[in-house]
Amino acid sequence: MLRTHTCGELRRSDETKSVTLSGWVNSYRDHGENLVFIDLRDRYGKTQIVFNTEEHSEIDSIARKLRREDVIQVVGEVRYRGDDLVNPKLDTGEIEVRVHELKVFSQSKTPPFEIDGNELPNEELRLKYRFVDLRRSPLQEAMKLRHDLTTAVRDYFNSNQFLEIETPILGRSTPEGARDYLVPSRVHHGAFYALPQSPQIYKQILMVSGFDRYYQIARCFRDEDLRADRQPEFTQIDVEMSFVERDDILEMIDGLVSHVVKSVQDIDLPTPLPRYTYADVMERYGSDKPDLRFGMELIDIGDVGAASEFGVFKSVVNNGGRVRGINAKGAADKYSRRLLDKDLKDFVGEYGAKGLAYMKVAGGKLESTIAKFFNEEQQQEIIKRMDGEDGDLLLFVADAAKVTSNALAALRNRMGKELELYDPAEFSALWVVDFPLLTWNEDEQRYDAEHHPFCEPNKQDLEYLKTDPSKVRADSYDLVINGYEAASGSVRIHDSGVQQTIFDLMNIKEEEAEARFGFLLEALRYGAPPHAGVALGLDRWVMLLAGNDNIRDVLAFPKTQRASDLLTGAPAGVDEHQLKDLHISVEDEGEE
Amino acid sequence: MLRTHTCGELRRSDETKSVTLSGWVNSYRDHGENLVFIDLRDRYGKTQIVFNTEEHSEIDSIARKLRREDVIQVVGEVRYRGDDLVNPKLDTGEIEVRVHELKVFSQSKTPPFEIDGNELPNEELRLKYRFVDLRRSPLQEAMKLRHDLTTAVRDYFNSNQFLEIETPILGRSTPEGARDYLVPSRVHHGAFYALPQSPQIYKQILMVSGFDRYYQIARCFRDEDLRADRQPEFTQIDVEMSFVERDDILEMIDGLVSHVVKSVQDIDLPTPLPRYTYADVMERYGSDKPDLRFGMELIDIGDVGAASEFGVFKSVVNNGGRVRGINAKGAADKYSRRLLDKDLKDFVGEYGAKGLAYMKVAGGKLESTIAKFFNEEQQQEIIKRMDGEDGDLLLFVADAAKVTSNALAALRNRMGKELELYDPAEFSALWVVDFPLLTWNEDEQRYDAEHHPFCEPNKQDLEYLKTDPSKVRADSYDLVINGYEAASGSVRIHDSGVQQTIFDLMNIKEEEAEARFGFLLEALRYGAPPHAGVALGLDRWVMLLAGNDNIRDVLAFPKTQRASDLLTGAPAGVDEHQLKDLHISVEDEGEE
Repeated sequence: MLRTHTCGELRRSDETKSVTLSGWVNSYRDHGENLVFIDLRDRYGKTQIVFNTEEHSEIDSIARKLRREDVIQVVGEVRYRGDDLVNPKLDTGEIEVRVHELKVFSQSKTPPFEIDGNELPNEELRLKYRFVDLRRSPLQEAMKLRHDLTTAVRDYFNSNQFLEIETPILGRSTPEGARDYLVPSRVHHGAFYALPQSPQIYKQILMVSGFDRYYQIARCFRDEDLRADRQPEFTQIDVEMSFVERDDILEMIDGLVSHVVKSVQDIDLPTPLPRYTYADVMERYGSDKPDLRFGMELIDIGDVGAASEFGVFKSVVNNGGRVRGINAKGAADKYSRRLLDKDLKDFVGEYGAKGLAYMKVAGGKLESTIAKFFNEEQQQEIIKRMDGEDGDLLLFVADAAKVTSNALAALRNRMGKELELYDPAEFSALWVVDFPLLTWNEDEQRYDAEHHPFCEPNKQDLEYLKTDPSKVRADSYDLVINGYEAASGSVRIHDSGVQQTIFDLMNIKEEEAEARFGFLLEALRYGAPPHAGVALGLDRWVMLLAGNDNIRDVLAFPKTQRASDLLTGAPAGVDEHQLKDLHISVEDEGEE
Repeated sequence: MLRTHTCGELRRSDETKSVTLSGWVNSYRDHGENLVFIDLRDRYGKTQIVFNTEEHSEIDSIARKLRREDVIQVVGEVRYRGDDLVNPKLDTGEIEVRVHELKVFSQSKTPPFEIDGNELPNEELRLKYRFVDLRRSPLQEAMKLRHDLTTAVRDYFNSNQFLEIETPILGRSTPEGARDYLVPSRVHHGAFYALPQSPQIYKQILMVSGFDRYYQIARCFRDEDLRADRQPEFTQIDVEMSFVERDDILEMIDGLVSHVVKSVQDIDLPTPLPRYTYADVMERYGSDKPDLRFGMELIDIGDVGAASEFGVFKSVVNNGGRVRGINAKGAADKYSRRLLDKDLKDFVGEYGAKGLAYMKVAGGKLESTIAKFFNEEQQQEIIKRMDGEDGDLLLFVADAAKVTSNALAALRNRMGKELELYDPAEFSALWVVDFPLLTWNEDEQRYDAEHHPFCEPNKQDLEYLKTDPSKVRADSYDLVINGYEAASGSVRIHDSGVQQTIFDLMNIKEEEAEARFGFLLEALRYGAPPHAGVALGLDRWVMLLAGNDNIRDVLAFPKTQRASDLLTGAPAGVDEHQLKDLHISVEDEGEE
């Protein structure tokens, strides 16, 4: 090896040892006399290197030419720095290495930004020089965290008799085919592969084949606009089990989550994780992925509104809408009139709300421009129901039920963060169960699958399949952590007859069903066990555990809007003959 | 869970326990009276189930309708079979389960072939019903072996401070771009991604970024004709290390191989694995991937041939060719004249050899139609050099040097197998090092990289880069196991100047280099450590350890020639609008 130790390894107990270190010149201090100090850096840490250019004149000229990010090898002796000179911030801070041999492996051009500088360069520059950006410790740590996380995941599943099985990347177009990437085949002229949005069909076939407990850390693809938290390729922890019911798989994943957060972040997470129904969280938080690190539940005051003299509330309720509110405890003085009337109103407007009503609690009464429309009894009822105390700020949205949910859920998240109602390091996980199976699609005059077409209907609701399919609950479940969907899954249909009923409701024609997932349908006819599964978004998990909101900080080589800047192929990089071979024509239509 | 135990778990010590089992009906014996026997199967084994249809008349009609591959759940009591009825071939052979509850999860159509039948159906049928084929124990075992192998690989690297880092599947076209799959992007009109043939450039960039020790079990792609042992997507164990020299990485991989074969197959493999130079194995075995489970080295008798009266040998040597042979010990009687003159001659003909000369050793002399052309002294010299004894069969090819290598290497492999010269279960691993760096491409009037353009030239040969580049050895290495290339790697160039020299020799223009791997070239200018890596073909490893020559038996969902039969997309499955969005035109040119 071109080193005997790493740059994070040496301690006072190594004093007098002769060592060889290799790494990057992190910083350079030429004290002008005969001593040159260098902090040498590698993945494991930093070590102070000292050149005495007088004692070792042969390395003088080389040492004085060293610059940041040059890669060097030094041979020297470990010395205690002396009591006054110990650097307690550095693991190796007790020692330095007095160098008598120096070799330059490679010189660096002036780096475009500092590796451990305090100012973060703009993201475009960071992405252009990704190889430099990846040297920064937050990114080094994120890759390490990602590795530790996948290791913990595999350890857990391996110790529970799961097999990791690779499923193909090159496959057939799936039910959500419109967003599939297509790959023309050179060998089979005119034929295409599709990149998988998930290994859904494969893993169900593996259950039919008797593999019983499967997982895979699987690459998935979706050809759609790049949003802030989306990438065209992403990674999911994909799981499927046979001979289980819903609660069995929830319990298995409870164990996974608990094991992972303990291994990676030493968090003790009590299990079983709490379970909420979809109906319950929609009512209490207006969202199917509520952040339960804080309360601030949605409260209905529709009946009070209807009985009041406040025209807006009255008419909304009379037209079948709802009036719901949240209580921002103690926040009466924290939001100015301008913020309330403009910023917050515009904010809920983005979620379709036509207005935002607010009242402050003071002296046991309501203070508001609209307070006068509520009599004493109504005011007391509102205060009671909202658990109001002096200094509280009550906010209300009166609108169609769905709008009140969406607007207040978003407002709740925003205010929870602004008012610092929770510890960002806290880890709050819950299951949401009993989602609707199907939703009516008015445009297409058919039902859409809420999760996907393979989701088992809740046994208690089977009667509704014929009478009112939108009432049928699914045997599906989402894992929600800190307000994000961290996993999603369902019990699958293992009966080809039930599967056919669902396809009929979705108006999927037999030919279409055969073309898209015929292989699975056929498999269900040859002895399919009851099975259920779940998929956990790995990238999201790393973000949650790293406490980082930028997905590009947890991927080694993320994609950006400016695809051509990075490692993405552009027409310039593609040989024209290749395109001709593949019968692809690229016409420039003047679009960007 | 829908079971309390698996079908491979119950023992006599479980007697009298009430258990619930779930699984597939493997076989069915209706003894006509009141007892029905079923072997219930799952991934873990088989358990004998007994229905007493008289005692439990409510399950009589259901039990008698059960057929092979139906999926059922039974509740019953564990009973000892009785001393005379124990089945020693079955782990659960001491017990049976007397059933009093039965539930059918799903019925199976008549399976197209038997799961544990002795006759293997044809491969086309097996692939069509892959979900049934995957229930067969050799395939179940192969998936388990694959899982165990990757687990052992990860354990090894994790305990050696490697990080597994995911690199993108959607990327830019690589140096071997002509075989890249191209993926049109919907978002970036007219732009393409390419699927990686390996993560080569990414992993080198990770080294520049300081990650130091990287591995990945990585999916790779190559758009080319499907051959027997090739698939359009394959998996490799991809490794890269910084601050190492060649011997450091060989030692690290020695440790990996030794750990893996010990973990998975309990084979003790002494390390360090032997190392041979390319020149040495080409001389002794005619191949850069010799099977060292047996000897039968290639011996040169060119000087004897030239001095003899045998015109063929004389003229070949005089024209710069070689005469080389192998000794098939004790095989004099094992090959008929017809086999020698026709089959083996045709066989070496496939490798370019114009003929095959043979002699038998008998009574200390040579017996052959050509023996008369060699005088006594020459005969004795041949016998001595070939280590000939009575009963040996000596075979010779006289031709251009390369032809003698290729033909005799192939003949050696064939005869080693036919003559059963080795134990197929033996595991023989070696390194081949010092490959040539560049080979002259007469057609293109340039040098081609033997390995790839990033391979470091051997320091001792640097002088030849200017005078005779084909003499330069590379710092590259192949791991060969039982005659197959099991891994391949090299020390990489970490100096952008040396990299430029190699591109110049390969006549890669600056513009082309920038377009194809500019991101790496730029990275090398910002402080690149010395680094080296290797890639091990996972699929090949599973095949070697499973003792299976068919790659389709070690992949859950292999691709076949008939792509449309399996999960591969065909135009029928692709929406026309999608193609239009992507500006792909599919013209039917009447080709197949």
